[in-house]
This record gives sequence, structure tokens and C-alpha cells, in this order.
Amino acid sequence: MKPVRALISVSDKTGVVDFAKSLYNLGIEIISTGGTARLLKENGVPVKEISELTEFPEIMEGRIKTLHPKVHGGILSKRDNPEHIETMEDLGIKPIDIVVVNLYPFKETVKSEKSFEEIIENIDIGGPTMVRAAAKNFKYVTIVTDPSDYKKIIEELEQTGKISLKTRFYLAKKAFNLTAHYDAVITDYLFKVNENGEFLTEPPEMRNPLTITFEKVQDLRYGENPHQRGAFYKEIFIDEPCISTAKKIHGEKELSFNNIYDIDGALNLVLEFDPNKEKVCAIIKHANPCGIAIGNSASDAYEKALKVDPVSAFGGIIAFNCPVDENTAKLITERFYECIIAPDYSEEALDILKTKKNLRVLKLDSMDKLINKGETSPFDYRKVVGGMLVQDRDLITLDPEKLKVVTEREPNENEWEDLLFAFKVVKWVKSNSVVYAKDGIAIGIGVGQTSRVDAAKCAAKKAKEMGLEMEGCVLASEAFFPFRDSVDEAAKVGVKAIIQPGGSIRDEEVIEAANEHNIAMVFTGIRHFRH
Amino acid sequence: MKPVRALISVSDKTGVVDFAKSLYNLGIEIISTGGTARLLKENGVPVKEISELTEFPEIMEGRIKTLHPKVHGGILSKRDNPEHIETMEDLGIKPIDIVVVNLYPFKETVKSEKSFEEIIENIDIGGPTMVRAAAKNFKYVTIVTDPSDYKKIIEELEQTGKISLKTRFYLAKKAFNLTAHYDAVITDYLFKVNENGEFLTEPPEMRNPLTITFEKVQDLRYGENPHQRGAFYKEIFIDEPCISTAKKIHGEKELSFNNIYDIDGALNLVLEFDPNKEKVCAIIKHANPCGIAIGNSASDAYEKALKVDPVSAFGGIIAFNCPVDENTAKLITERFYECIIAPDYSEEALDILKTKKNLRVLKLDSMDKLINKGETSPFDYRKVVGGMLVQDRDLITLDPEKLKVVTEREPNENEWEDLLFAFKVVKWVKSNSVVYAKDGIAIGIGVGQTSRVDAAKCAAKKAKEMGLEMEGCVLASEAFFPFRDSVDEAAKVGVKAIIQPGGSIRDEEVIEAANEHNIAMVFTGIRHFRH
Repeated sequence: MKPVRALISVSDKTGVVDFAKSLYNLGIEIISTGGTARLLKENGVPVKEISELTEFPEIMEGRIKTLHPKVHGGILSKRDNPEHIETMEDLGIKPIDIVVVNLYPFKETVKSEKSFEEIIENIDIGGPTMVRAAAKNFKYVTIVTDPSDYKKIIEELEQTGKISLKTRFYLAKKAFNLTAHYDAVITDYLFKVNENGEFLTEPPEMRNPLTITFEKVQDLRYGENPHQRGAFYKEIFIDEPCISTAKKIHGEKELSFNNIYDIDGALNLVLEFDPNKEKVCAIIKHANPCGIAIGNSASDAYEKALKVDPVSAFGGIIAFNCPVDENTAKLITERFYECIIAPDYSEEALDILKTKKNLRVLKLDSMDKLINKGETSPFDYRKVVGGMLVQDRDLITLDPEKLKVVTEREPNENEWEDLLFAFKVVKWVKSNSVVYAKDGIAIGIGVGQTSRVDAAKCAAKKAKEMGLEMEGCVLASEAFFPFRDSVDEAAKVGVKAIIQPGGSIRDEEVIEAANEHNIAMVFTGIRHFRH
Repeated sequence: MKPVRALISVSDKTGVVDFAKSLYNLGIEIISTGGTARLLKENGVPVKEISELTEFPEIMEGRIKTLHPKVHGGILSKRDNPEHIETMEDLGIKPIDIVVVNLYPFKETVKSEKSFEEIIENIDIGGPTMVRAAAKNFKYVTIVTDPSDYKKIIEELEQTGKISLKTRFYLAKKAFNLTAHYDAVITDYLFKVNENGEFLTEPPEMRNPLTITFEKVQDLRYGENPHQRGAFYKEIFIDEPCISTAKKIHGEKELSFNNIYDIDGALNLVLEFDPNKEKVCAIIKHANPCGIAIGNSASDAYEKALKVDPVSAFGGIIAFNCPVDENTAKLITERFYECIIAPDYSEEALDILKTKKNLRVLKLDSMDKLINKGETSPFDYRKVVGGMLVQDRDLITLDPEKLKVVTEREPNENEWEDLLFAFKVVKWVKSNSVVYAKDGIAIGIGVGQTSRVDAAKCAAKKAKEMGLEMEGCVLASEAFFPFRDSVDEAAKVGVKAIIQPGGSIRDEEVIEAANEHNIAMVFTGIRHFRH
């Protein structure tokens, strides 16, 4: 059926004048409201105001414009139902065949410095109702919510005189996708504030149902594996440095699914360290660090991180919490890496890095940690088949006051530094994990083992293979030791101090083991499982 | 301000009669529609029909009832705005202070055997519009979408004569949470069908924006760690056996965050095996298998799976793809496990398992795989800070026809069986991973290492420590070997056949190494990274 009437009321006015002109030239009557009507008239498109259609004024500062049976009867009527046709004739309802409505993004309203009252006022009621009504009635009606679809629609009308069912359905899906997103963003915002619009100091409740929404950044070449499609989405509100705010400043190839996941792991790790106090470099492979160290300079940190496991480092991700200088860039280009991420690069460094065509160079402004200001989601999600596990992000940091030395021997000053370093690292290694550290270098990283003692053994074996001196090192464990075995293993390789949460029913046995070996042991009271 | 008028139009009629009566007794006028109006009248609650308010008939088989300026002006007016008050007087609009609306769950419509046309007809336009309008105007209006809030509202009215701003805001958040969920479910459905309502055979597109929604199953004691809150949510449409459809039939303690994650890992693994062909038992710790074997019986499979790493098995999850009998139950209760999941339990087995107070026993009906029927989400999600990685689930299975022997020696029949078994296992082990297998037992599982050769070495070392005979075993790698080193390591421990994707630029070198050691090697062409 050839459409006879279009209702146009848009917030994003991109291309709407040309679109309306084309519709008009195809013999379609244009109904419009407010700003859209003005714009179209100014541009010579004959337009009927919606109040002419409804014979009802626009009231309450525009709160009520389109919520009228003559509008919604026109949208929702079944064109081939005799009763509906009769009703329309009786009540003077005219069919609306094309609805062109888009919504002012609620995100922008929140981000502007508007008052709570203005933000709430901005919630669109009439718009989503028209979008939903037209989408529901896709059997007869065309709903257009995206200016990028204008061209396709005009082409179809010009070529066939109508819009196909297939296109109408495609547009209807898109329309419900928009209203779902719109209300999800509103909900996300409302759950973060109180009734006066003040941001809550606690993370929001875990609501039921839970609806979360994201904007697509890009389709990826594939997912974790080539037979899986993949895409990267970002959150709507973000206020901290993360992979979603990083800018790629060099590198032809796009980031892959695995790159993005690894970069996230790398950032979690290096953002544990205050760049004003410590310069840190981490090298990540398969979402786990295969090297991390504190250095006097970026290059020093890099070299120390690398020597722990140069084999694994091949094709890895490097992250710094400090700017990258020329010397560091030179060292990096001697080897193959997929990506590098840092808060900044000297001009010379960037020139050197750019000689590597496929090295993706990412810049992350303001790497100072800005967590929990009420924007970036405070939730972490873990997908399972048929469901989703939701938890608070693991944002807790150690309170030095609350650390408890449980052994006869206290850690000396160097050991304390290494213990705190190692515990920050082990937090971001997949469980079960242990980290051996010495002089600000993670000299052994035990990753993702099904038993703790195996993690301890694997990492020690690796460190020895690499010819690293373990005597005098410290050990961090992200969860308590269930038995004394790991302490005995630690003693064998020369560990002098251990940091761990404590809390096992065998803590006494574990402490006794430490005392026997003259190892200092610190309890944190905080566990950092990560899977 | 004391509310004077309530509009009630509900799909879920639980408690609505008593609620309406209480409101009426508090001097509040009740406006209602259709079935709700009839029910209230039948129960002696004086009710005004909405058409009396609008002076407009209900038209188009109820498609247009409440979409009227007299309804929405009544909901959306600012009660303290002189202009709004004047408009209301001029047009005869009466304030509506309480809106009681809930929506027929769209999920139920889809699950019923209704036609596509009926499903679309069921999409509610008027209801969500009233919910959204009332929620927007929470400064003046109370929106009630959940019968469980009726009591609280009556209590507040009885005690204070009004509804507080705090309560109105709480209800408004809940209302937008409902409409977001409602449209997200509709969108999810629409993206899975074509314009005629037929389910697509391909997984749906990765849309932009992406809005996903879940129903809460339960709050959990905590997340991965005690300082993180946690909750478990399920998908809206599920048509395959998974943790969301499993039933807990014994165990006082609730499942933990980590239990659920581990059970998911366990199910992915055992569901790889057809219970009509092979009886399989897997033991999971920290989301990775620490034991898995095929047996002649459930108990045989369990014993074989256990002996590979009884230390890690402590406190683990056990999963079977076959029913658990008395003998197996006896063996299991000799040790400490957190959970067991299986398709069924004999009466005797269940009695024995029930003697363990804290062992959670889960039953999963119809463990036959039913994947990709258009219901359970075909997507896998990986959270990163500030964003979400989305990919197709890794549902591909090996096509035996496409396996390619690339070495001089072919695997013999036993080796073939072990190769296919090992490759199914390695798919569900965190990368980098290798699995050594012999006679249907995974005798060495190398988990989550940053380098492949380390995974190979760690697993072999462990197998030897356990006194397992490796001579004549096979090796599976979930991704290609970047160098020949892993093959050389494999040869040292007695590996006779290897299965791996192939595709490295050094494949030739790797094949040559296999030929040198007289190892048979099979390429699958399929990689299974999993992080």
C-alpha cells in the first residue's frame, strides 16, 4: 500500500529536511510538531501541525502533544479491518503510515550540567509512545528512528511506491531496540541517585529485573576464535581511564577481541600503582601478566618486567603507568608485541614506535585513578550459559593499618615494599595464583592452577629456569593457604616473607611452618579470587 | 498532598481488589478499564470507567483506551504550576495521583503457542506509556507496578495521608526498570525472528545499541570474594540444560558465586559427551577441570577422574553426564566436595549423598544437548572496565571428516579415540592449555599458562608426580604450537599422537619435529581459546 501520510518529529535533525522534501514530492502529506515543523516550513516543506490533526491544543509546556487518540488511532489502526476503518471514519481519524521520530539521547542530558529537575523533564513520553505504537503496527506502518535509514526508504518508495514488509520489520526491531536502550539508560541513571538527584555514595542495588545497555564501538574481526563473531561495546557513562576511553594513535590493524581483553587486564594491573610514586610496566599474555616490575624509568621497568619471561612476552600487550620515552620505545621495537598502552609518549618515542606497522599504540589520558564517582558501572559481570553472575567490581585496596604480622619475625623495610607490590600484582592474576617478588620485580608468577601449591611450584620452577635469583624474595598469595605445603615450598626457594589473606582453619599450622623457616608472614584479611 | 484519584489497570490482578478497596476507603476515586474495572465492580469497589473521564470511546479492539490527553494531562500535570492548573480547568482534565499498572509478561506470550500476529498484538502500548508518564512525574504522582508494593502504600497513606517523595522515587525507578526490561525482552525476541515470525537459523546480528536483560534468581552471599556483593540472574528464554535450569535437590547452603561459575564450566565440559555413548565424570576447581575421564560406569569414570589430581579435587565440583548410582555416591562421600551435578540419582545414591549436610546436589533433566534452538542466548559476554566484549558462544564441534593427519604416521584406533576426547576437554580449559590423555583419562591438564610450552611442562610434571604412566599417551592443544618446543617436550614424556588446530607460520617445523619423534599429528583447523 502506498503511504499517504507521515508524522515527523525528531530531535536529531540530520537530513530530515531532504527526507521530508522527498516524501512530500512523492505525494505524502507531512504532519509535524514544534521545532521540526518550524525547520521544515523554513525550508519550504509544506507541513500540517499536529494540533490541526488532533483539534486539541499542545498543552503543559509540550508535555502533552501527541498523546491523542487521533494520532495513535492513525498509527495503530489495522488498515484492512472494516471495524477499524469505520471507527476512523466516524471519529475523523486519518491513517499515519510513516512515523519519523528519534529521541534526544538521555545520556547527553545527564552529562550536561542540568539540574535534576531538568534532567527528569527531559524524559520523553510522547516520542517513545509513537515509536512503540508504530513499531508494533509494522504490518502497516513504517517507523523511522535513524537518519541513516532515510536514503533506503526514499529509494524503496521511488522504486516500488511502497515500503516492503521486510523493511518495515527491520525498522520495527530497530525501534524497540531504541526504546529498550532509552529506558535502560534512564533506569541506570535513576538507580545511581536519590530522590533529590544526588549521587549515592554506595554502589546501587542489584535490581530485579536487570537490564543493561551498551553502545557498539566496533565489530571485531572475530571473537576469541575465528569461528566466533565478536564486537566491542562501551558503557553509556564512563568516568575513569579504561579501554573504552583509550585512543589508538598508531597501528593499521584493528584491536582484536583478545587484545581488548588483555588490555583490560593490563590496565587493571598498572592502575594499581600511583605513577607519581612508582613507574610500572606490565606485560600481559592470555589475560595474565607474564612480567611486571617497578623501575627508575619506563625503560628500566620494561627491562625488568621482560627478563622474567621473554618467551611468553612474544606477541603480548605492554602497559605503562608512566610516559614512554625514546629509549623505552627503542627497546620495545626490538621485539614483537601486539599493543602498547601508556598515558603518553614523547615525540621521539612515537616516531620510533610508528616504524612498527602492526604495533597498535594506545594513549590513555589521565591515568590517575578516578574510580566510583557514580558513572562507570560498579558491577562486574560473568556470563554463564543461560544466566549472568553479577558482582561488585573488586575495587578494595589494602589498608596498611590493618595488615597483621602473624609470625615471630617482622618483614624488614625492603620486604614490606615487595610484599605490598606482590599483593597488588596477585590480585589481577587468575586464581589460583601466587607471585614471587624481589626488588620490585615479579620474578615468578604462578597462574590459574587448580591447586595453590602447584601455582607456587610452577612459578618457582620457571624463575629458576630463567636463572633468576630467588633467595631473599617474598611471596604473595591471593587466597589463604589451605595447608602448610606452599610455605614449605616457599622456604625451599628462599622466600623470606609471605603476604596472604589468612582465614584458613589451618592458619595455625601455616604460621607454625613460617616460624619454623624464619619467614615473616602478613595477613591482609582480604581475598582476591579472580577467574 | 493527599491523592484524590487513582487509575488502576492491571494484568496481574494479585491483591488488586483489596488494594482498590483500601484506596477507596481512604477517599480516593478509582478510575479503571476493561477487565480490571469489571473485577473491581464485581467485588463492590465503586469504579469510574476511563471513557467517562476521557469522554472518548475505547476503540480498535482496545488498542486505543488510555492514549488520551485527559488521561495523560491528568498524570503529567505539575500540580503547583498555575498555567497547568488553568489548562486543566479549561479542558476539564482531572489530576490522577496514583497510577497502578502492570504489564502482561511478554515472555509468557512468546512461550505460549500463540501465532506471530497474536504475539505482536500482545505488545502493550498504552500500559507502558502510563507507567512512564507517571514515573516521570514522580514529584507529584505515585506509580505502582508491583503488587508487592500495595501494602507499603496503604500503610503510608493510612499513617501520613500521603505518599512520601522517597517512596514515589523508589517506585519510579522500579517503573522505568520495568519498561526497560519489557522492551528489552520484545527486542530480544524480534531480533531472533524474521518478518513472518519464523525463527532465524543463524544467530542474530550484534545490534547497536545492545540492551540485555535478566531476571534475578537469587542474591548470593557474596561475589568472587567476601567484600564483593553478588547475585545470580537468569536469561529470559532458555531451552537447554544449564545452571539456570538445574534443580537443587539437597544441600542446606546456597550455591556461591564461585560454585555457579564452576558448575557452568563443568557442564560445558560434560555436555560435550553423548551420555548414550560415553559415561563421563569431570571434577572442576577454579573454573578448570582438575580431572576428567570416560568410564564403564559412573563410579569408574569418577575414580579415573579423581586419581589425576586428588589434591586439587578437594572442595571441587563434580559433574556427570550420566545418572549417579549407589556405588558412586559412596565413593563421593568419602571426600569433601562442594557440589555434584548429574542428570539423575538412584534413590540409594541420593540417600547416601544426603548424609553430607553441606554437599549441594543438583539435578539437570534432559542433559541431551539442545543448543541453538533460538532461545538461550547465542552470545557470550566478557566484561571489561567501561565496556563489554560480545561474541558468539563457542558451539562448534569437530567434523571428523575434516580432520587432517599431517605426519607420516597415522594415529591408531586407540590414539584416535584419545585425541578426540582430549580435544573436547582442552576446549574448556583456560588458555594456554594442553591436555595429555590416555585410555579416556585426562592424565595431565595444563591450565592457563602464559606460554604453551609451560602448560605442557607443568602438566607433564604433575602427571609424573602422581605416578601416572604417560608412555603412549596423546596430547591436545587448544591453539597451534608457535614453535617445535612443545612437541619435543611431548616426545620426552612418551606422547605418541598430537591434535591441534594448525595454522602457525612454523607448522612445517612443528610437523618435522613430530615426524622425527614418530609422533602422529592431526590438524583440526579449529582453535578454542578460552580466557
